[in-house]
Amino acid sequence: MPKISEKGHQMPESPIRKLVPYSEKAKEKGVKVFHLNIGQPDIETPKAMIDAMHNLDAKVIEYSHSAGIISYRKKLCEYYAKHNIHITPDDIIVAAGASEAISFAMQTCLDPGDEIIIPEPFYANYNGFAISGGVKVKPIISKIEEDFALPPIAEFEKAITPATKAIMICNPNNPTGYLYSEEELKVLREIVKKYDLYLFADEVYREFCYDGKKHFSVMNLKDIEDNVVLLDSVSKRYSACGIRIGCMISKNKDVMSTAMKFAQARLSPPSLGQFASEAAMDTPDSYFDEMIAEYKARRDTVVDALNKMEGVVCPNPIGAFYVTTKLPIDNTDKFCQWLLEDFEYENKTVMMAPATGFYSTKGAGIDEVRISYVLNVNDLKAAMKCLEEALKVYPGRTI
Amino acid sequence: MPKISEKGHQMPESPIRKLVPYSEKAKEKGVKVFHLNIGQPDIETPKAMIDAMHNLDAKVIEYSHSAGIISYRKKLCEYYAKHNIHITPDDIIVAAGASEAISFAMQTCLDPGDEIIIPEPFYANYNGFAISGGVKVKPIISKIEEDFALPPIAEFEKAITPATKAIMICNPNNPTGYLYSEEELKVLREIVKKYDLYLFADEVYREFCYDGKKHFSVMNLKDIEDNVVLLDSVSKRYSACGIRIGCMISKNKDVMSTAMKFAQARLSPPSLGQFASEAAMDTPDSYFDEMIAEYKARRDTVVDALNKMEGVVCPNPIGAFYVTTKLPIDNTDKFCQWLLEDFEYENKTVMMAPATGFYSTKGAGIDEVRISYVLNVNDLKAAMKCLEEALKVYPGRTI
Repeated sequence: MPKISEKGHQMPESPIRKLVPYSEKAKEKGVKVFHLNIGQPDIETPKAMIDAMHNLDAKVIEYSHSAGIISYRKKLCEYYAKHNIHITPDDIIVAAGASEAISFAMQTCLDPGDEIIIPEPFYANYNGFAISGGVKVKPIISKIEEDFALPPIAEFEKAITPATKAIMICNPNNPTGYLYSEEELKVLREIVKKYDLYLFADEVYREFCYDGKKHFSVMNLKDIEDNVVLLDSVSKRYSACGIRIGCMISKNKDVMSTAMKFAQARLSPPSLGQFASEAAMDTPDSYFDEMIAEYKARRDTVVDALNKMEGVVCPNPIGAFYVTTKLPIDNTDKFCQWLLEDFEYENKTVMMAPATGFYSTKGAGIDEVRISYVLNVNDLKAAMKCLEEALKVYPGRTI
Repeated sequence: MPKISEKGHQMPESPIRKLVPYSEKAKEKGVKVFHLNIGQPDIETPKAMIDAMHNLDAKVIEYSHSAGIISYRKKLCEYYAKHNIHITPDDIIVAAGASEAISFAMQTCLDPGDEIIIPEPFYANYNGFAISGGVKVKPIISKIEEDFALPPIAEFEKAITPATKAIMICNPNNPTGYLYSEEELKVLREIVKKYDLYLFADEVYREFCYDGKKHFSVMNLKDIEDNVVLLDSVSKRYSACGIRIGCMISKNKDVMSTAMKFAQARLSPPSLGQFASEAAMDTPDSYFDEMIAEYKARRDTVVDALNKMEGVVCPNPIGAFYVTTKLPIDNTDKFCQWLLEDFEYENKTVMMAPATGFYSTKGAGIDEVRISYVLNVNDLKAAMKCLEEALKVYPGRTI
């Protein structure tokens, strides 16, 4: 039998999905499982997107332009302008989700052996895209005690080698929910400029900011326009993860013309998703106002409950819909599996993502979990009650 | 400004798209351009697929399973069983077109530096996927004088080195339209078995066989079940290129579990396209009967016309909707550009794909073009008339 590639062996299993067999067994036993493990929002997709499908007027569903339908890219420019990001359709390549956009960016800018610095914990799939491209991730730790703020500039400098080609951030952050401030980003700008690195920024949670705080985009960092690559998606913005529409944006013409060659190799992004995304632009502001109010209530529910549990440390994140929290446990992988295999409270249990999967440093995050607050407040309350009871009886409790 | 990756520099420009600026200029001058350059069929997408969108019943467009919606994969098994390919849903990973499926297969089976043998001319984007993965393509020539039949086994053996990990074929073939026979595939099987190679087969044109000839799938080659990876797409089958739904199929469990890690990294294939593709299974056989009759008439129109032109050599292909034909010209890239820039006949001209883009060997295909017969018979007749007149006056005519 022919051999699997080395790359294939190196690919990590998804930390979000590796517990699925255990959750399925729990459900078979009749236990209700609260899914706080994945970033699949339950918010309704805007009516305009569903209507676009109901009113689909096409005889042939054709390939679109490899960079995306031009009318959609024009509308995207209007959307970004509203968010104070000023671009033209040529600065955009529409992709099958932020996932494909990240792949394009990595392939365009980094070769095998090159290094990319990413503050950890970070979105686990960055690892997968890096391994695909033979790129080495150099993590630098964001500390939970500092609410996962941007690590000090000295830490970045320590991590830089001649092979360093890029820094990547996610803002607001998955898995921590941390919102990098304008000041922090300006610090990052200095190091990007000094070492002439690429700055990749995943801003898919742009709208998800609470407590009146505003998102500042890397696209507005002065003098590093040719270094910045923005990665985006409509998945979370419109609660439409399944349509697989994202994009890659840069003002760097060489980056865009090279990325187009990768985009042409796969012909086109999904047309139906683009039709829906174009229609989504007509979504009224009230949709977002309601969504943000709902997520704020959910965050408050989860963070309040966690901080009332003995031995739990939970920052109060300002963005996205995740918290990464420290629990009084020996091993998060064991604990999350135990919750599904050996625990139930009033016939319910909770599924969370072990934080180890979001760290690249071995052993880091061993007592942390990521919780996605993508359920309604009542379910979140019940889920937090389960977690509280679980921590009382978990055999591997540490304090 | 930071540097573009080496990989990015190596990526070829799409041979199908590099002439687009010239075709746009021709159109601006008021010249009608017959598009024989791309594989975008004009046949209507089945009503069942459009209806699936009109009747879309979803509040939230969610991520699907990373391997694809289970009900869709079950239906796919029924579809394949009708084509005498017997598989289970676990043997399938649904992907964003055959493009993504090919990427998964390459990443799962080949590392940078590994070699893949592909008979040329071949679908140009195989090159792109290979470069993305650092994989080296070793071409072996299929001769136009032999209708682009499978090269002799001795040619494969000559090309094999210790770095050879796979052979890739496209059957029926893009860009030649050649349909490999069961006998030819059994010859291929011997070499795959002898050297324990992977055999990747792109069978997206399975339905497109003419003159009563039947397609034989690599999935039915005995004793090499663990070596075979099938790559497929609904794009051509249902004239729905824009929905970006394909799949990767293998009975090799290690290949599938590794490919799943790559599939999980990008979360999910497009949901809307999967809904449409599942509905497509209800397309009546008459849809295909009519489509095949139409394409046969188109092929006959093009092949007859070409063979009547002086100095033109055109095989009569049995499958797909392409012909690769030899013209009495000095340089196909120059000729195809000249057609758009400097020629018109009764205010019309024709756009074709220079065959050089489908060869990996430098200089090969210099006097060949690929013609996609994706227009109706009357337009094809007019396009062939243009080509005939063009060949009479082209300054670089050789004979």
